[in-house]
Amino acid sequence: MARQLYELVGADPARRFSPFCWRARMALAHKGLEAEVVPWRFTETDRLAFARHDKVPVLVDGDRVVADSWAIAAYLDQAYPDRPSLLHGAAALRFVPAWADTVLNAALVRLIVSDIPPLLGPGEAAYFRTSREARFGMTLEAVTADREARLPGFRALLAPLRVLLGGQAFLGGAAPDYADYAVFGSLQWARCVSPLRLLEQDDAVHAWRARMLDLFGGLARDVPCFPG
Amino acid sequence: MARQLYELVGADPARRFSPFCWRARMALAHKGLEAEVVPWRFTETDRLAFARHDKVPVLVDGDRVVADSWAIAAYLDQAYPDRPSLLHGAAALRFVPAWADTVLNAALVRLIVSDIPPLLGPGEAAYFRTSREARFGMTLEAVTADREARLPGFRALLAPLRVLLGGQAFLGGAAPDYADYAVFGSLQWARCVSPLRLLEQDDAVHAWRARMLDLFGGLARDVPCFPG
Repeated sequence: MARQLYELVGADPARRFSPFCWRARMALAHKGLEAEVVPWRFTETDRLAFARHDKVPVLVDGDRVVADSWAIAAYLDQAYPDRPSLLHGAAALRFVPAWADTVLNAALVRLIVSDIPPLLGPGEAAYFRTSREARFGMTLEAVTADREARLPGFRALLAPLRVLLGGQAFLGGAAPDYADYAVFGSLQWARCVSPLRLLEQDDAVHAWRARMLDLFGGLARDVPCFPG
Repeated sequence: MARQLYELVGADPARRFSPFCWRARMALAHKGLEAEVVPWRFTETDRLAFARHDKVPVLVDGDRVVADSWAIAAYLDQAYPDRPSLLHGAAALRFVPAWADTVLNAALVRLIVSDIPPLLGPGEAAYFRTSREARFGMTLEAVTADREARLPGFRALLAPLRVLLGGQAFLGGAAPDYADYAVFGSLQWARCVSPLRLLEQDDAVHAWRARMLDLFGGLARDVPCFPG
C-alpha cells in the first residue's frame, strides 16, 4: 500500500492550510519519505472513520494508521530510526508544539479566521463559520476587526524564538528538526489563508521562515499561498 | 581542584534564590555530580572576574570555568556523556529556558520583586532597589501592588506545561531532564523569596512541582523558602 497523508484542503485541493498537516508534511520530508496527499475537507469526518479519529493529519503507512501530528512525529522516529531524527528521543520537545498550539495558534486564529471561509466550498464555509462564530461568540469579521492593532502583541509572543535564532540558523541548531516544523506549521497556516503580513522584514523569525520555505526544494513555498 | 558552583544568595548564605542557579544546581544533581556552593551576592562582580562574566551561576570544574546556565548544561552533557543526559543532543530544548526567561520570569518578577530586598543585606538591598526601580520606572511595591489580581493571568501562561503534564510525570517524560530544571528554576526562585501562592492545589503544575521538590533527596525542598 502506498504511503498517504490525509491533509486539510480548501475548495482548491491544492490549498493546504492546516498547521498540524504542515507539521506532518515537513516531518515526512525531513525523513526523506514520499506520501501521496489525500485531500480532506472539514465536513468529511466519515472518511476518517477507519482511523478512529475526526481530524487530520492522518498518516497511512502500509498497514499502520497514525492520527495526530505529534503521534506521527513519534511514529516516524520509531519506524525509521536510521533516517534523520525529528525528536532525538527528547520527549520535552513536545513543549514546542504545545506552545505553538496554546499560544501561537490561539493568537493567530484571532488575526486570520475571517480569511478562511472564502477559501472553502459552500458546505465547508457554512460549517466553519457557524462552528467558529459559536466558539468566539461573534462574527468572524468582528474577531479580526482590529487585527492590525494586535500585530505588535502577536510579534512579542515570538520572543522565545528570537533567543534561539540569535545564535543558530534553526531551532534545532545548524539543521531543522521537529521544533522547527511545529512552529513553522503555524506560520504556514497563516500564510496559506491570509494576506496579513505577520512578520516584519528585519525580524530574525522572518529570515528563519524564509529558510524553512527553502527546505526540501521549496516544498512549502511552492503552494497556493499569500506572499506573507 | 574541587568542583564549585557560584550561586546567588541573600543576607543568609543558605537563601539561594536565582532561577538560573537552580537550573545549574539541579543539572549537577541530575548528573550525580557534587559541587560546593560558593555564595555570591549581587554587588560582588569583582569576584567573578576570573570567569570573564558578571553574573551567576559560574561553574568551576577542575580547570574549566563555565558561566551561564545554558552553557553549563551543554558543558555537563559534553564533559560527562556517560551520565544521564540533560539535553539529548536536542539544541531545540533551549526553547524551554528561552520561554521561561522571556515569558515566565518576566511575569514572575512583577509578582514577587518587592519581596526580595528584605532578604538581602543593606548594600545589596540598596543596589537591588535602585537598579530595579529604574528598570520598572516605579517603586517595587508599586510593581507588585495588584499582584493577587494578576495571578489568574500568570497561571494561564503555564498552559503549554499542562499539555505535557497531562500525559507524563515530567516534561522530559517518565524522568526529568533539563526542560524540567529550566522551568522549575523559575518557580523555585519565587518559592525562595515570596510568600505569594502562585499555583492552585489542583493544578497539574503544582503536582509536578511537588515531584521536582522530591528529587535528589529533597535537594530543592530542604532549603530556606516559603511553603509555596
